[in-house]
Amino acid sequence: MARHLEEQTAQVSFSLPIRVYYADTDAGGIVYHARYLDYAERTRTELLRSFGWPLVGPDGENFVVRKASLDWKAPARLDDLLTCQTTVLELGGASVILGQNILRDDTLLCATEIELVLVSSQGRPTRFPQALRDKFSGLQAAN
Amino acid sequence: MARHLEEQTAQVSFSLPIRVYYADTDAGGIVYHARYLDYAERTRTELLRSFGWPLVGPDGENFVVRKASLDWKAPARLDDLLTCQTTVLELGGASVILGQNILRDDTLLCATEIELVLVSSQGRPTRFPQALRDKFSGLQAAN
Amino acid sequence: MARHLEEQTAQVSFSLPIRVYYADTDAGGIVYHARYLDYAERTRTELLRSFGWPLVGPDGENFVVRKASLDWKAPARLDDLLTCQTTVLELGGASVILGQNILRDDTLLCATEIELVLVSSQGRPTRFPQALRDKFSGLQAAN
Amino acid sequence: MARHLEEQTAQVSFSLPIRVYYADTDAGGIVYHARYLDYAERTRTELLRSFGWPLVGPDGENFVVRKASLDWKAPARLDDLLTCQTTVLELGGASVILGQNILRDDTLLCATEIELVLVSSQGRPTRFPQALRDKFSGLQAAN
Repeated sequence: MARHLEEQTAQVSFSLPIRVYYADTDAGGIVYHARYLDYAERTRTELLRSFGWPLVGPDGENFVVRKASLDWKAPARLDDLLTCQTTVLELGGASVILGQNILRDDTLLCATEIELVLVSSQGRPTRFPQALRDKFSGLQAAN
Repeated sequence: MARHLEEQTAQVSFSLPIRVYYADTDAGGIVYHARYLDYAERTRTELLRSFGWPLVGPDGENFVVRKASLDWKAPARLDDLLTCQTTVLELGGASVILGQNILRDDTLLCATEIELVLVSSQGRPTRFPQALRDKFSGLQAAN
Repeated sequence: MARHLEEQTAQVSFSLPIRVYYADTDAGGIVYHARYLDYAERTRTELLRSFGWPLVGPDGENFVVRKASLDWKAPARLDDLLTCQTTVLELGGASVILGQNILRDDTLLCATEIELVLVSSQGRPTRFPQALRDKFSGLQAAN
Repeated sequence: MARHLEEQTAQVSFSLPIRVYYADTDAGGIVYHARYLDYAERTRTELLRSFGWPLVGPDGENFVVRKASLDWKAPARLDDLLTCQTTVLELGGASVILGQNILRDDTLLCATEIELVLVSSQGRPTRFPQALRDKFSGLQAAN
């Protein structure tokens, strides 16, 4: 069962490698906890690039982060090579909840859920264009 | 009722003023979303200082962030003067959940819940010393 | 002579206290070297505020950093209370070179020289308005 | 002549591609000026990796930044793909001055000179081991 789930996840996640540099660490000798949000943002940017969707859309729309939850399970350290794996947990009309997990090899270091909203240049929630919706759907695990 | 609650909250919260500088903002013209975790950390450090509790305790123990949730409601901007208000939501034996809200005047910009664990120098959860527990209790809203 | 100079400098410098938080430190256990530029920027913002000069001027002009040099002499550490002392080293028509030193008590940790240019909303160097020039002059050590 | 120099430089520089993310930018719509020091640090880490030299050496020695100068010539923007080109400008017994230029395509955005010192685990300057010295020499432009 777990193995089955793992295979599905592997098929539908987007991954970005992330190297830990001094700038990411703190005096505790580990990655500063807020840096995981930076890693997730960086990965979302590359996810949109893989979709062929620009950071600022054709009508000036862009994504804003509405909610986030983070669960730190083990620390990342200087010079670690991490991976940020991203899947779609829930897909709404103008919003999407991503699961973005940061791992070192197979060890989950930080599990995050990030809710994004697409907003117009006036800051109003805007329905996803179909092409973008299709891309997010393709990252959604089958139920 | 709401007014009553507000009075109680005012009595038992710890507040830190926070000025927004260029370093905190992003190309969207607003405070970068991860910076709110920095603001909350800064406020916790000053909270511990107000408790007379050092960042690294007498036996090498220190606080680690285990979980966080953030709910961004409105953006903060360059040069804003913010306040981070902190209360105790839940107090366990070796862990505490803080409510840390970032406001501009009376407007709530970002509501966070942060779960902290006190760990020994070996990284094991450690029960709060009574003096520290009493301080956290004093920040807990009456039920 | 040196004592005389010190008195003058004391009269004409602007100082901001800066507390070191976890977010500023790195895995070396000290303040991350780039953070000193953040501290200097923060101090310049408060300097301009003390001048009554806004970050973005009445015609959309603003300051950009053209050059900087930094000389790290000793490390700052977590929870240190630092001071950033700022004076005017050289005052041009549309640019100014500031000396911004970061100290812990009387110990100089990092000496910086920062060259700023005032640029119009079109990005062109713009002569300082007289009121602003007078303020910078007041921070310049007598020769 | 210029072309000749360019060929030499190309032969002896180390380059790292750097993508600009939201976390790197500020409310001016450009990369925050201090971020260039982060980019340079990241590139030095990869340079040492290419040398086969660890961030913390066999006897606990590591590099500290003693001095830096930065000259910003044009702004980098969100989503830019930059390159940090690194050469050795001056090689001492226990210190090295690197030239680290950040470019977008062929446009130089920020020229930096960074002086590093190798220090022992006690914080004292330590002569470069011959293997490390040879690596730096290989990055030094012929005169």
